[in-house]
Amino acid sequence: MRHYISIRDLDRNQIDHLIDRAARIAVYGADAQPLKRKILGLLFFEPSTRTRMSFESAMLRLGGSCMNLGGVEVSSMAKGETLADTIRVVSGYADTIVLRHPKVGAARLASEFADVPVINGGDGAGQHPSQTLIDLYTIHQSMPLDRIKIGLVGDLMYGRTTHSLAYALTRYNAEIHAISPKGLGLPESLKHDLREAGCEVIEHDSIEEIIRDLDVLYVTRFQRERFPDPASFFDVAASYRITPSLLQGVKDNLILLHPLPRVDEIDPAVDSLPYARYFQQARNGVPVRMAMLLEVMQ
Amino acid sequence: MRHYISIRDLDRNQIDHLIDRAARIAVYGADAQPLKRKILGLLFFEPSTRTRMSFESAMLRLGGSCMNLGGVEVSSMAKGETLADTIRVVSGYADTIVLRHPKVGAARLASEFADVPVINGGDGAGQHPSQTLIDLYTIHQSMPLDRIKIGLVGDLMYGRTTHSLAYALTRYNAEIHAISPKGLGLPESLKHDLREAGCEVIEHDSIEEIIRDLDVLYVTRFQRERFPDPASFFDVAASYRITPSLLQGVKDNLILLHPLPRVDEIDPAVDSLPYARYFQQARNGVPVRMAMLLEVMQ
Amino acid sequence: MRHYISIRDLDRNQIDHLIDRAARIAVYGADAQPLKRKILGLLFFEPSTRTRMSFESAMLRLGGSCMNLGGVEVSSMAKGETLADTIRVVSGYADTIVLRHPKVGAARLASEFADVPVINGGDGAGQHPSQTLIDLYTIHQSMPLDRIKIGLVGDLMYGRTTHSLAYALTRYNAEIHAISPKGLGLPESLKHDLREAGCEVIEHDSIEEIIRDLDVLYVTRFQRERFPDPASFFDVAASYRITPSLLQGVKDNLILLHPLPRVDEIDPAVDSLPYARYFQQARNGVPVRMAMLLEVMQ
Repeated sequence: MRHYISIRDLDRNQIDHLIDRAARIAVYGADAQPLKRKILGLLFFEPSTRTRMSFESAMLRLGGSCMNLGGVEVSSMAKGETLADTIRVVSGYADTIVLRHPKVGAARLASEFADVPVINGGDGAGQHPSQTLIDLYTIHQSMPLDRIKIGLVGDLMYGRTTHSLAYALTRYNAEIHAISPKGLGLPESLKHDLREAGCEVIEHDSIEEIIRDLDVLYVTRFQRERFPDPASFFDVAASYRITPSLLQGVKDNLILLHPLPRVDEIDPAVDSLPYARYFQQARNGVPVRMAMLLEVMQ
Repeated sequence: MRHYISIRDLDRNQIDHLIDRAARIAVYGADAQPLKRKILGLLFFEPSTRTRMSFESAMLRLGGSCMNLGGVEVSSMAKGETLADTIRVVSGYADTIVLRHPKVGAARLASEFADVPVINGGDGAGQHPSQTLIDLYTIHQSMPLDRIKIGLVGDLMYGRTTHSLAYALTRYNAEIHAISPKGLGLPESLKHDLREAGCEVIEHDSIEEIIRDLDVLYVTRFQRERFPDPASFFDVAASYRITPSLLQGVKDNLILLHPLPRVDEIDPAVDSLPYARYFQQARNGVPVRMAMLLEVMQ
Repeated sequence: MRHYISIRDLDRNQIDHLIDRAARIAVYGADAQPLKRKILGLLFFEPSTRTRMSFESAMLRLGGSCMNLGGVEVSSMAKGETLADTIRVVSGYADTIVLRHPKVGAARLASEFADVPVINGGDGAGQHPSQTLIDLYTIHQSMPLDRIKIGLVGDLMYGRTTHSLAYALTRYNAEIHAISPKGLGLPESLKHDLREAGCEVIEHDSIEEIIRDLDVLYVTRFQRERFPDPASFFDVAASYRITPSLLQGVKDNLILLHPLPRVDEIDPAVDSLPYARYFQQARNGVPVRMAMLLEVMQ
């Protein structure tokens, strides 16, 4: 039985296989209802509407059904029930479980008690492998994944999305440019892991100093609560904002990604420029998750 | 691509076509699963269970699937995301979107950013075209729509349902009797529009003075918060309440409509009289919405 | 039209028929999508995730669809609407309604106004017939239902689950051992009914004094709010806790049941012993509810 718990569990071949499968689905569609009569159970202990919606859309497009396995309500209602007990019960109701949980390690634990496949839909500061696969797939739509120069912008200290993507890119010998204000850079341990795995990691204070060299710019949000006061948050947010003028002189084939929702990180005037790929990236959630669901249930 | 945003966008032929299609569905049923593998996305930024449920039931009866595209949760979660961004993302997950939103104009805006059809499920004090189509369809089940004499009862100043219905009836040369307490009559601008479009509009203080002449009596609720104090609310509610004795002497084929839920506006003793059509009207939500869904997705 | 309101409405033949049907489904599966295009409406006026989930899973496995008919939201939104009106409207949206309601008698009332079958998913301190059928089915998987010696543990004064099960077992001449602290024993009227129906009912203060004679031990939770203070709750909970040592010397074929979720009533060390059947019991919710849905909709 296959689970998807961490992007680190997947080698390059497995990632390439999923990307290929998603690409074929996006072009040719899936077979007629391959997952007919199958049930995808969504067990979300914290809200994550985008993740839930694109898994649900993916499952419906494959002819299957979805059901809400509770989560927030279960946890408040059944106070004191262990995650192990919950998983043992609900894995009788569904053919695969997507679990979203606030605690790191919850998905791994769940996979030990479930007798159906478990897909990690995000476990706290831990892993969220489908998001990383979507990011890789979106890059792959524009260029080969090997040896890209990628800039990661935002709160790189706490940003799960950028950590997982950076780690996955070690499979493809990326050159990683970490762009963040002081104090919000990549954790030392992650930088060590990335270099160990053969990636070059270069740190920057500003986007301007590196943007013209990049193939991919991956933008994420700053969390207001990481800053001592609103003024310093707005200062940082303003100086890392992506605008049309910042994009002058970049490579023709630069692509701009963002896991969405965005607030002010990217000026809406950028949306109509050829670099903008973040809405396409959001929609790629469906074919990538279709590929994952087929892997575990077909 | 066809959207349904306002009843004003539909001419008489288009309304008649929808009513005919709904009538055929109600009698013969739909083809076997015409919307198989299609997904209806429900994006409700304010609760409206009846509208949601009857769209959902309509979609399921056509062989399709439904998914909740968030709404209230999305808006609280993704603080600061624009409606345009939300629509661009979620229109990748569904084949049609039903949008309910507290702000007038939201559905029109959404239809500009969606690349799938948008059906307005109510935008604040604005439009709610499927409700009006249900009202027209229910009247049509009992009599031709042309030149009916209809009484509208309730808070006609703020009542979206009665405004849309009145407007739609201009297509059929109705004689409109507006029955409301002082201060809650039809807005001047609407009366002007209705008369401009060729309808006669007559205002009344009491139901008694006109009920014996009517073909249709359309009853709506008074909002308690429109009244200065509970006593004046109860006075008004009592004097506009529909009872068996009020109905003595009415036309044999009078029909009584109400968009439901009712509280005290109609005495339950009226339910078993032949005039009562409000439960039938509620159920007509399914075939009418089936017709609308087929129009936009088939 | 068949409703399922109370286990008391079912005679022994009807129960046996449902158990057989569930058993055949569990072994052979259901036909291909027997309830295709049918809609199960879930009307839950109080949360009950396990009941909802297993009905939903059962319906999906039969090829049908489910929809949430509101409940908690409806009731807050449509303040003042009667249950009769709600049922009249929503029974236009679904082919069967599962109703969960805090008030005893609500399901019976609903069945009078619905023109589709109503299944009681629990009405306050009243009935919850599908839970009892699951309990009977799980016992039947291990032994014939006739003349079993069953121990009921927990708050037997207020415990709906144990009352319904005890009542159903009168059809099978069970010997009922009621095990509870003073003040939380079976109500006098129920003991009278059980004896009237030919069952022997014996009361016990402790599990130890009877456990070695039992075929089935049915464990339920104590509600903390029934106790004057936390200390007396913990005292009772500890002395009625099921542990491996308590189980020494029991019959080889004793089975342990619990409606779940459990908190501390059963030591997790018991889970791996052959007596533990509570997870199997939870999963039996699906085939038993499949059988019920087929009875009312096929």
